[in-house]
Amino acid sequence: MRASAPASSAAGSRARTPALAAVREIFPALDTGEVYLDSASTTQKPRAVIEAVHRYHSAHTANAGRGTYPWASSLTQRIEQVRAAMAEFIGAAPDEVVFTGGATAGLNAVALSWALTNLADGDEILYSPRDHASNIYPWQQLRRLLAGFGRRITLVPYRVTALGEADLEDVAARLSGRTRLIAVSHLHHVFGALTTLEELRGHIDAEVALCFDCSQSGGHLPVRVAELDADFAVFSAHKMFGAPGLGVLYCRRRRHAELMPFLPGGNSAVSLDDSGLRAGPMPQLLEGGTHNIAGILALGAALGVLDDLGLEAVAAHNRALTQRLIAGLRRIAGVEFLPGPAYAPCETGYGIVSFTLAGITATDLGFVLAELGFLVRTGAHCVPAGQRPGDEDSVRVSTHVYNTVEEIDRFTECVATIAEEVS
Amino acid sequence: MRASAPASSAAGSRARTPALAAVREIFPALDTGEVYLDSASTTQKPRAVIEAVHRYHSAHTANAGRGTYPWASSLTQRIEQVRAAMAEFIGAAPDEVVFTGGATAGLNAVALSWALTNLADGDEILYSPRDHASNIYPWQQLRRLLAGFGRRITLVPYRVTALGEADLEDVAARLSGRTRLIAVSHLHHVFGALTTLEELRGHIDAEVALCFDCSQSGGHLPVRVAELDADFAVFSAHKMFGAPGLGVLYCRRRRHAELMPFLPGGNSAVSLDDSGLRAGPMPQLLEGGTHNIAGILALGAALGVLDDLGLEAVAAHNRALTQRLIAGLRRIAGVEFLPGPAYAPCETGYGIVSFTLAGITATDLGFVLAELGFLVRTGAHCVPAGQRPGDEDSVRVSTHVYNTVEEIDRFTECVATIAEEVS
Repeated sequence: MRASAPASSAAGSRARTPALAAVREIFPALDTGEVYLDSASTTQKPRAVIEAVHRYHSAHTANAGRGTYPWASSLTQRIEQVRAAMAEFIGAAPDEVVFTGGATAGLNAVALSWALTNLADGDEILYSPRDHASNIYPWQQLRRLLAGFGRRITLVPYRVTALGEADLEDVAARLSGRTRLIAVSHLHHVFGALTTLEELRGHIDAEVALCFDCSQSGGHLPVRVAELDADFAVFSAHKMFGAPGLGVLYCRRRRHAELMPFLPGGNSAVSLDDSGLRAGPMPQLLEGGTHNIAGILALGAALGVLDDLGLEAVAAHNRALTQRLIAGLRRIAGVEFLPGPAYAPCETGYGIVSFTLAGITATDLGFVLAELGFLVRTGAHCVPAGQRPGDEDSVRVSTHVYNTVEEIDRFTECVATIAEEVS
Repeated sequence: MRASAPASSAAGSRARTPALAAVREIFPALDTGEVYLDSASTTQKPRAVIEAVHRYHSAHTANAGRGTYPWASSLTQRIEQVRAAMAEFIGAAPDEVVFTGGATAGLNAVALSWALTNLADGDEILYSPRDHASNIYPWQQLRRLLAGFGRRITLVPYRVTALGEADLEDVAARLSGRTRLIAVSHLHHVFGALTTLEELRGHIDAEVALCFDCSQSGGHLPVRVAELDADFAVFSAHKMFGAPGLGVLYCRRRRHAELMPFLPGGNSAVSLDDSGLRAGPMPQLLEGGTHNIAGILALGAALGVLDDLGLEAVAAHNRALTQRLIAGLRRIAGVEFLPGPAYAPCETGYGIVSFTLAGITATDLGFVLAELGFLVRTGAHCVPAGQRPGDEDSVRVSTHVYNTVEEIDRFTECVATIAEEVS
């Protein structure tokens, strides 16, 4: 647990977050009796987050960065406090932290505000076709856009291993002198496996941009952008106890001079001269229009909660639940795991496990589980069609601090009962 | 007042909105004793909106369009209900209503998802250099992007009149066979004047796209996209009683076949084939990633409130306040109005009046007014530098349903006192 205060102070006055054992108390939506196992879609919201949004909407609603009266100017300060807290949270500088409409918008910002004007004919992007659509479509869209202007770039696919990680040998083999960007899921949203590219550090040209989708790792384990050697990294606020409609794009300072404005408008750091639009300083170069103020205040409160809980403790809790879940499911005949920690030689796990059960489709299994009070995600999980072997759907179980060993045991017992019935 | 129910039902259960006279009661932030005159920056939030967000965050938080369990699938339905309510609110079809991160994002979507691939070398966009930056920078950015690919388009500026409206003679004179898009502020954010282009209807080629920024008119007066003959129109949820981080882009059906995906990702209506990304159906073609769910639920509640109040009544109230404000300010020596309804031959007004006072800068006047409890906006109001005659700042007063004649009278008396002191 870090001793630093910025995240907490950005959250405003609030009750101190309880220890992990009592943490369910601060998530009011868990009172329903159902077992929420879909945190990889969105996390439940702690009271501090709910209250931060409620406070903004019910008292002193104003627009930030505009008015000179205290309501407005104090909001401007709060936004910069949250930016500083988020920067500290990932080991970045505040001017490297951009607020976006979400992680998807952040990856599209990398495509539109960096790659579109920096990639030349013949350049290459390495990506995984088994990633989330949000880490594929922006690059596909970029390729199509550039092709329309007669500039051809190539999207070079790399494989994932049985463990669900990027296949580093394959990545290394596909590197070329034309590689400009490598798009990576830090924590895969279906496989629950971590990819850092750390082992390839010496093999990748320092000029190649590394872009990490940290939507699933943010708020689940410590993410340090410097350790990842990331040029770009995106985070999803609503997947780390915050509100939907907000993401964070980390953009490393060495790339700042290469950026174009992103969705420019009111309050963007741009100016007009005779030659047209001129880029101004970061991070406002990539921010235009009114911020999602409520979402930013919610993120500030969420960072405070995460800071109080301690990311190491959060990660340890999810690891223990993942191990318990794998052990429970492994005993059930007909369960087949998708790539992920179930195949790992050591005890890893980050709160995401996906599987299928013989004799019942994933969709039907999801419906039955929902009837019995277990809320999981089923389907293709936003992996584009045609990119999955056999295109098969699966059940994804994803946990967070508010889940308990008892819930996991009840879940696996329930799956075991269903398995007996359909076998 | 319309009798239709969709907006109300989209808002969920809530107390009926009181008549205009008692409307202040439903805006809890007004209890502070200060006089809020900055609704053009953002409106205060009614209880129904605050509660819709609170309910989402505190109970049944889930991600929409994904899960099969009831929490998630009911949210998916609610989002489509709000889309239908918004469509009815502006006289559009649901598949013409796109949820964006804000009005600024919506205008950038027009630039990136339509203009970028539809404008040819030599084409022209008509725009007003005295508009909000969000209705200028997207076109400037587009021009720069296209120039980078060797495609030159021209941004042709048109003038505004002393009344603050687009100068229709000037617009007509600047039309050419290469005009592809006319960007218009429906209600100008500083001048408070309405532009519909109605008088030019026969003179503008039917193929020219009309794009209206309705950020200030939405929720203030009835906006019917068919009457505007709009191809595109954008709305800002937080300026119509909703939450920040959400906008609406109206996109007329005849343009749908010309669109590229906007910020594609999870849940975008796109697919991959051997040739790359293929566009799918609207409106999801322009929506990617997790929606701002809380913001959409808030918009649903806001539309319910507006529907209950009746837009004609809202518009009449703002018109009366505007007239009262102009009459009060006109009596003060040293007050000079910016273009707007103060110069109109008849009694118009839409809740926005901007002015300067001799002997004191607008910024200082704003500080003094804030000290005395009047919250106004001062400065350049997001009009890009170099685009204002003399680049002078001003004080903008903007009203809404919760403002009273008594507040306006106290405000003008206060300005009169300050005027005496600085003269």
